[in-house]
Amino acid sequence: MRILTVCLLACGLTGFAQSPEEEIRKVLVRQQADWNRGDIRAFMTGYEKSDSITFVGATVSRGFDKVLARYLDRYPNKDAMGELTFSGVEVKMLGANHASVLGRFHLKRAKEAGGDATGLFTLICHKTAAGWKIILDHTS
Amino acid sequence: MRILTVCLLACGLTGFAQSPEEEIRKVLVRQQADWNRGDIRAFMTGYEKSDSITFVGATVSRGFDKVLARYLDRYPNKDAMGELTFSGVEVKMLGANHASVLGRFHLKRAKEAGGDATGLFTLICHKTAAGWKIILDHTS
Repeated sequence: MRILTVCLLACGLTGFAQSPEEEIRKVLVRQQADWNRGDIRAFMTGYEKSDSITFVGATVSRGFDKVLARYLDRYPNKDAMGELTFSGVEVKMLGANHASVLGRFHLKRAKEAGGDATGLFTLICHKTAAGWKIILDHTS
Repeated sequence: MRILTVCLLACGLTGFAQSPEEEIRKVLVRQQADWNRGDIRAFMTGYEKSDSITFVGATVSRGFDKVLARYLDRYPNKDAMGELTFSGVEVKMLGANHASVLGRFHLKRAKEAGGDATGLFTLICHKTAAGWKIILDHTS
């Protein structure tokens, strides 16, 4: 019994029981790492695998496959992908199963690969059986 | 009793009991009318009167007063405001008390007042005691 108590305490202290906000931040941290490894398909696991997810850029892309195709088209290789970082990330819960995320992306990239880029993004995330997933991404 | 029943039926049939989606669409219809009357302060009643509301444009404006100031600065008179229409508006419920809205704005405007403009917006709306209000607006 004492062992169980110690374990539960330790789990609590070491953060095993993560808050939704922590879980959502981890999705972005993982996306950043996947991108910087040059793995767009791994990066895409941050999005819900659904026909209804939405990417709002200069135009609207609808559905997981279209969003993936857009990334593959715009970032055909590791040089074009550059080095991604997020900054100023703010997570706001919208009830228990949704959240919005506001932040800025920075792309450090060689001039011949398109040069540096930056912009603001608003995400809407949804709690699914497979964890928190992005269902809408408005990047500008 | 029969009168009450008839009244309840009539209320239902004439749409007194609006769905959240209908209520949210009404906020946008009212905003459009307020804008086209040249009344930015009335237009702003579509937003929650809170220090935490967020407008994401080229930069981030935080709080009702800042968002209002941004509109007043960019659209100082009726000519600069032009004629606003929204198109392709999609409302998606995020639980019972939040919703996202995706759409496109069109501004019809004389050349000397800045010319026509268009762009995409994502809104996050929140159900408050005063009705549905915008708490985040990402326009690009």
